[in-house]
Amino acid sequence: MSLEIEIAKNSGYCFGVKRALDIAENTLNKYRNKNAKIYCLGQIIHNKGVVEELSKKGIKFVDKEEDIEPGSIFIVRTHGMPPDIIDKLKSRNIKIIDATCPFVKNAHAKARTLSKRGYFLIIIGNKKHPEVIGIKNHAKGCQYMVVENLSDLDSIGKKEKIGVVVQTTQTLKNVQAIVSGLTKIGKEILVENTICNTTGNRQDAAKDLARKVDIMVIVGGKNSANTTHLAEISKKINKNTYHIENYKELKTEWLKDIKKVGISGGASTPKQDILEVKKFIENKF
Amino acid sequence: MSLEIEIAKNSGYCFGVKRALDIAENTLNKYRNKNAKIYCLGQIIHNKGVVEELSKKGIKFVDKEEDIEPGSIFIVRTHGMPPDIIDKLKSRNIKIIDATCPFVKNAHAKARTLSKRGYFLIIIGNKKHPEVIGIKNHAKGCQYMVVENLSDLDSIGKKEKIGVVVQTTQTLKNVQAIVSGLTKIGKEILVENTICNTTGNRQDAAKDLARKVDIMVIVGGKNSANTTHLAEISKKINKNTYHIENYKELKTEWLKDIKKVGISGGASTPKQDILEVKKFIENKF
Repeated sequence: MSLEIEIAKNSGYCFGVKRALDIAENTLNKYRNKNAKIYCLGQIIHNKGVVEELSKKGIKFVDKEEDIEPGSIFIVRTHGMPPDIIDKLKSRNIKIIDATCPFVKNAHAKARTLSKRGYFLIIIGNKKHPEVIGIKNHAKGCQYMVVENLSDLDSIGKKEKIGVVVQTTQTLKNVQAIVSGLTKIGKEILVENTICNTTGNRQDAAKDLARKVDIMVIVGGKNSANTTHLAEISKKINKNTYHIENYKELKTEWLKDIKKVGISGGASTPKQDILEVKKFIENKF
Repeated sequence: MSLEIEIAKNSGYCFGVKRALDIAENTLNKYRNKNAKIYCLGQIIHNKGVVEELSKKGIKFVDKEEDIEPGSIFIVRTHGMPPDIIDKLKSRNIKIIDATCPFVKNAHAKARTLSKRGYFLIIIGNKKHPEVIGIKNHAKGCQYMVVENLSDLDSIGKKEKIGVVVQTTQTLKNVQAIVSGLTKIGKEILVENTICNTTGNRQDAAKDLARKVDIMVIVGGKNSANTTHLAEISKKINKNTYHIENYKELKTEWLKDIKKVGISGGASTPKQDILEVKKFIENKF
């Protein structure tokens, strides 16, 4: 029995993730021999394996800012961070190395501009995601609301001026539904569609592949927003879609009586993880 | 057999129409005895009966600007007009009396601002409607496109900055669909929702009534955008919806075996026309 395996175009690391990991490596090279401590608050990218590897190389991943020692080096994660936390770290003589994705920084800038211009700010995104926590902290001083889906709009009354920024990894479909809903509420609506292009391209490629295969395997962190959306989008087209973090989670029963497998990975998924999934499936046949 | 008749709330003349007709009457009073000729290009409001009446009182309704005599008085219709035509009339020593609806003037102002600020302008509206012709002539010097429905967007490529103004009598549903579609195309989208409040309120009231009655009669000019939309909206809820210009178009077979009739009228429909429809139906039973 022959099994065909196809890896989706645009799967794996995006520009922002590659850049953040380059910054992490460069920081390690520059400061490791100087006995400086290098910290990161939360995961630098949403991938356990990558974080474990960088941890072995010397980056200390902590959950609380108090755990960061004065005089150390601090890498801002790719999802960005609230500016007041960065200011506090600076005041404690901590050197900041910014690995925030430039597309996320663009969303920060748009949030600041809209809030300064008196818009009621809507941030379309996942309330608990670090990127959204970062964005909303750039909008301080104005009224804002994080909106995950259309039903969240029910509690907002009519507004004169609504400004919109979008978590970079949102699905266009969700943004369209929410913007359509806002048209009912606002007299003037300024939408800054800050979804990053690579997110859309990756989603489109996964959709194309999902139509042609018997099962789709989406590889990447369960806490990665873009990987999770990728799996959701694929599942709508192909119900045999499985979101796994690595090849060890593959189940042989998924592969029973099938002819073609599609694989894609999120923006924070190493190519290696995708190739391991491919190899594992090949070896089973 | 008893028949119930209910007239929808918010049916009949809107603020802009009342204002335009007051301006017409005041102009007649002021200039009639001075032997001045008073002109209007096209219908002052989209209602044949009203135009005929004003015509009898002395206003000359013409189709071409060349037909307007120098030294005369000119009333700008409630739908507004392209500014270059008004300038040409002024240069021919014609006195301009502006009866443009203030909500339409607001759409003009938004179109001018968006075009000055470098937006690709989308005007959501009926391509041939005088209001839209007026709006698009305020956007001169920028790229613009009139969009009637979602499928019109197929020919537009990706844009950095899209500005949106809306014909005041559009349905919110159409605007929502188009704005949702624009979210795919534009990176920044500034929507100036210039639908006037009374349009929405009238549509909502007609919808409520259409749900409760056996037939709905919508009274008003067939060339009136807002009356036509009102009939479309009502028909979606109650298929026994009839759009008539006056009671003479009523057909007795529509009233056969029914218990409740709803009546509404557009923004340019005189209350009298609505009451005549009511009276005609009452007399038939």
